[in-house]
Amino acid sequence: MGHFNEIEKEIFYKIIFSRRDVRRNFTGKKISDEVLLRILTAAHHAPSVGYSQPWNFILIRDKGNRLKIKESFSKERLKSIELLEKDNEKKKKYLSLKLEGILESDLNICVTYDHVRFGPFVIGRMTMKEAGIYSVCCAIQNLWLAARAENIGVGWVSIINNRDLKRILKLPSTIKPVAYLCLGYVNKFEVLPDLQSQNWLKRLELEKVIDYELWEGSNKRLAEWESFNQRLTGKKSS
Amino acid sequence: MGHFNEIEKEIFYKIIFSRRDVRRNFTGKKISDEVLLRILTAAHHAPSVGYSQPWNFILIRDKGNRLKIKESFSKERLKSIELLEKDNEKKKKYLSLKLEGILESDLNICVTYDHVRFGPFVIGRMTMKEAGIYSVCCAIQNLWLAARAENIGVGWVSIINNRDLKRILKLPSTIKPVAYLCLGYVNKFEVLPDLQSQNWLKRLELEKVIDYELWEGSNKRLAEWESFNQRLTGKKSS
Repeated sequence: MGHFNEIEKEIFYKIIFSRRDVRRNFTGKKISDEVLLRILTAAHHAPSVGYSQPWNFILIRDKGNRLKIKESFSKERLKSIELLEKDNEKKKKYLSLKLEGILESDLNICVTYDHVRFGPFVIGRMTMKEAGIYSVCCAIQNLWLAARAENIGVGWVSIINNRDLKRILKLPSTIKPVAYLCLGYVNKFEVLPDLQSQNWLKRLELEKVIDYELWEGSNKRLAEWESFNQRLTGKKSS
Repeated sequence: MGHFNEIEKEIFYKIIFSRRDVRRNFTGKKISDEVLLRILTAAHHAPSVGYSQPWNFILIRDKGNRLKIKESFSKERLKSIELLEKDNEKKKKYLSLKLEGILESDLNICVTYDHVRFGPFVIGRMTMKEAGIYSVCCAIQNLWLAARAENIGVGWVSIINNRDLKRILKLPSTIKPVAYLCLGYVNKFEVLPDLQSQNWLKRLELEKVIDYELWEGSNKRLAEWESFNQRLTGKKSS
């Protein structure tokens, strides 16, 4: 299978760095079935523990169901606001954030995990029980990047109660919702993540999340750090 | 931020479809710091719940630690074999599988989850408690794809006991190991996933994992299904 050259790598990294968690700027343009199939096929080609492919994708266009899910979001958002009762500054910031695009996006997708599929003996999952859910997350990331390559924005809404999702989407008891995604064409992809441009948090320096041999194992540093960091991520990633 | 054209999309999908879970064919060629930094930067640009970036990457080259981790693998593999005691055919197949490349690969990376970082109030994680771990998995998938773009194979070894990993790598109690990855240049990427070519399991038809509006909500089918399926994934994905 193919060898990738410098130009191809550059395109790949451009997709990685320009992917955003999108909750606004939706244009309303419809995603065609052909494009959607390409995106779902990319998701379906994610790695999975013991090749168990434990994912399902529920495509939701129906406005009725989306309204019910939006209600769950609103309830959960209120709970979060209550948690910030004692931190007025954070609360104010939180209130100003746009955290979902459930109704404005063209399409919602609920991605679920099926623990039963190809079981009970799934290679790898006998030792690491959560690995099946990890596989679903890998599929979600494939989907997200494929959407970006197709110039489609994706937002992952985690402020939704799983019990509500199970009820509204009629999921069997063995099926666990992992992600609720909102997809749509956008008139632009922001240069920075929203939570960074709105001063909620900053991107960590990469070196802060790298260790050598052991947890906090050494003060060693990868060579080429400085030049690399500036060249590749520039001012964009701070 | 950029708009991707048809040629760029095609390159992206080529990377997605040719990524493999690699446990053999390692050449021993060293991964340079520059390449490694590009791969880790891609991982670090994954989405994360509430922008919490809860990942760490422990780079392991030391053979001593790798040997200890290989021991954990061997112990866990024996446990799995015991579970197959009553299924001789499956057991025989399992015994023939190569499930890790801990010592043959150039580099091992343990990817961990830090629940404490930027907490306790993390947007989205107050409702969906597991979302932080999901973010780490998205970072792992970014890493995996970036490695593929760099023509480097990655294998995720899940047959390792997390307690052993925590002890060997001296992880604090608040840090959870999510993935143990083996990276290295390979002399080829297989056309099919190993577990498919060795008849352990087959790739599911994509339509089997897609639902409309609700769980098993309708018999509707995305248009262009047949032509698309053949055109895009061809004979490669069965």
